[in-house]
Amino acid sequence: MSNINLDLLRQGNRRALAKAITLVESKLDSHRNQAQQLLEEVLPETGKSIRIGISGIPGVGKSTFIEAFGKQLISLGKKVAVLAVDPSSPLRGGSILGDKTRMEELSREENAFIRPSPSEGALGGVAQKTRETMLLCEAAGYDVILVETVGVGQSEYEVAAMVDFFLVLMIPNAGDELQGIKRGIMELADALVINKADGESINLAQRTKQHYQNAFHLIKHGSFWTPKVETCSALEKSRINDVWEMICEYQQLALDNQAFYEKRARQNAEWLNKLIHEMLEMRLKQNPEVQSKMPLLQQGVMNNTVTPYNAAKQIVDVL
Amino acid sequence: MSNINLDLLRQGNRRALAKAITLVESKLDSHRNQAQQLLEEVLPETGKSIRIGISGIPGVGKSTFIEAFGKQLISLGKKVAVLAVDPSSPLRGGSILGDKTRMEELSREENAFIRPSPSEGALGGVAQKTRETMLLCEAAGYDVILVETVGVGQSEYEVAAMVDFFLVLMIPNAGDELQGIKRGIMELADALVINKADGESINLAQRTKQHYQNAFHLIKHGSFWTPKVETCSALEKSRINDVWEMICEYQQLALDNQAFYEKRARQNAEWLNKLIHEMLEMRLKQNPEVQSKMPLLQQGVMNNTVTPYNAAKQIVDVL
Repeated sequence: MSNINLDLLRQGNRRALAKAITLVESKLDSHRNQAQQLLEEVLPETGKSIRIGISGIPGVGKSTFIEAFGKQLISLGKKVAVLAVDPSSPLRGGSILGDKTRMEELSREENAFIRPSPSEGALGGVAQKTRETMLLCEAAGYDVILVETVGVGQSEYEVAAMVDFFLVLMIPNAGDELQGIKRGIMELADALVINKADGESINLAQRTKQHYQNAFHLIKHGSFWTPKVETCSALEKSRINDVWEMICEYQQLALDNQAFYEKRARQNAEWLNKLIHEMLEMRLKQNPEVQSKMPLLQQGVMNNTVTPYNAAKQIVDVL
Repeated sequence: MSNINLDLLRQGNRRALAKAITLVESKLDSHRNQAQQLLEEVLPETGKSIRIGISGIPGVGKSTFIEAFGKQLISLGKKVAVLAVDPSSPLRGGSILGDKTRMEELSREENAFIRPSPSEGALGGVAQKTRETMLLCEAAGYDVILVETVGVGQSEYEVAAMVDFFLVLMIPNAGDELQGIKRGIMELADALVINKADGESINLAQRTKQHYQNAFHLIKHGSFWTPKVETCSALEKSRINDVWEMICEYQQLALDNQAFYEKRARQNAEWLNKLIHEMLEMRLKQNPEVQSKMPLLQQGVMNNTVTPYNAAKQIVDVL
């Protein structure tokens, strides 16, 4: 921990924060231990932000929205951290769109901290690092943490499991759920925000909003909050503050209903279980006896010459 | 193994088969070992059936369909086993509808074997037992194994992971994907069968069929098979044989494309991985040191006084 200045980190120094995150992302065992010491140390100072997941398939204008939303929050006096979960996220330099200047304005703000996704790590993968990075940002005094995911595959589940509020960005596109959104996502979302509600799309955006509001009524949700549908235009910076007010309303209701910290406690307990599994898997993978036995047993199971149960037993008995 | 007559089992004796399944479902360690010996012994005789998963929410007429389908297969000279995965399945005596005489006709057939779902077991849960039960049925000479699930929660994924062909039953209901079907299911399904295509619903069934055929075109599937949509009436026993012919067509194509046994080998490899995880979890849970440490660590993680990583490490280090 010699080269991480904790005082500077606590004062919100972005260089110190960036260095601490790099430590947390490191795969070296010695760094891992250092990182854990650091995290234990700052733990009492964490948890004070509102953690917001932002998902949406490529093309919904996620970067433009985050830029407009982040700048709005800063204008309200907030300190905003933006973290990306997916290696293919726009935050990684726009690998999808070939645009290297995403969120340029936001990144120039004193009170913004933007961190692209870590490269896939050994233990716990990307989401694990993002959780820990979130804690570091909180220790550094960030009030709002935006966790961005492209919403393809598993990543939206992982992000929903680490945030207080999960927001799904969409574009005006009435009637076709199959293309636009998966039902699984609807069940995760605390809100849908229909971006690009501008120009000729305003009416379509309204119809889309109506459509999803109806859809939400078909889905069972937690008791105190029915997911909301909003429209906005990140390009024209209109109705951006409405999104923030909706999130504030949610937070207040969740606090009033004892649901806010209960959800975080539950998320931590689930995180613990996930980590236990990942560590066990890691130990198995790294065990030389398992490494030598596994290929033959796998072959046997695939050829139907040994039952999966017996093969599994032989592997587990090694530990 | 003293009380299981292997010769009788191989001859297809239903009493011997039922006893063997009871052994496989037992939670006693000594039974577990016996069961595994038995499974190893019959392993060379397994794998010769076609394994068909049948899913559908309550109300689609699953029992009526399975009865009509099973009887049709028997009339073609097949031996048919019906296994249920969910504890709440209609096979368990119609706990949902209060009807204790489901599949009464089928159960009276010489060449049918009907087994309700096991009660939730310790290791691997219900699906684990169902996989092994499937192997026993194959050793007993059953040609077609129908694995039934109510399609709520995780069970359809588990069933899809153990069968050759996954069929989702639906009712005529045009236009509203949100109520009728989850996109996740569409991705699992090799076919949708719209039941109750009779009386006044015939036209609606046709429109529903058209609707889902269009929907399937939006979803990427394996190369050699595009999921089909069929209509039938289990009540009127019409178009039941078309469903069977579709499955035969699938099987022939899958065999021609080397996909049939590849899929089974992949399923076995995934099953092995799942079992390894479940066994590890079991060993952790049963470890006295883990049992004494876990509650405090969980509490600490939930209260934010210890990081999940450190808590996980303390647990895993016990092993």
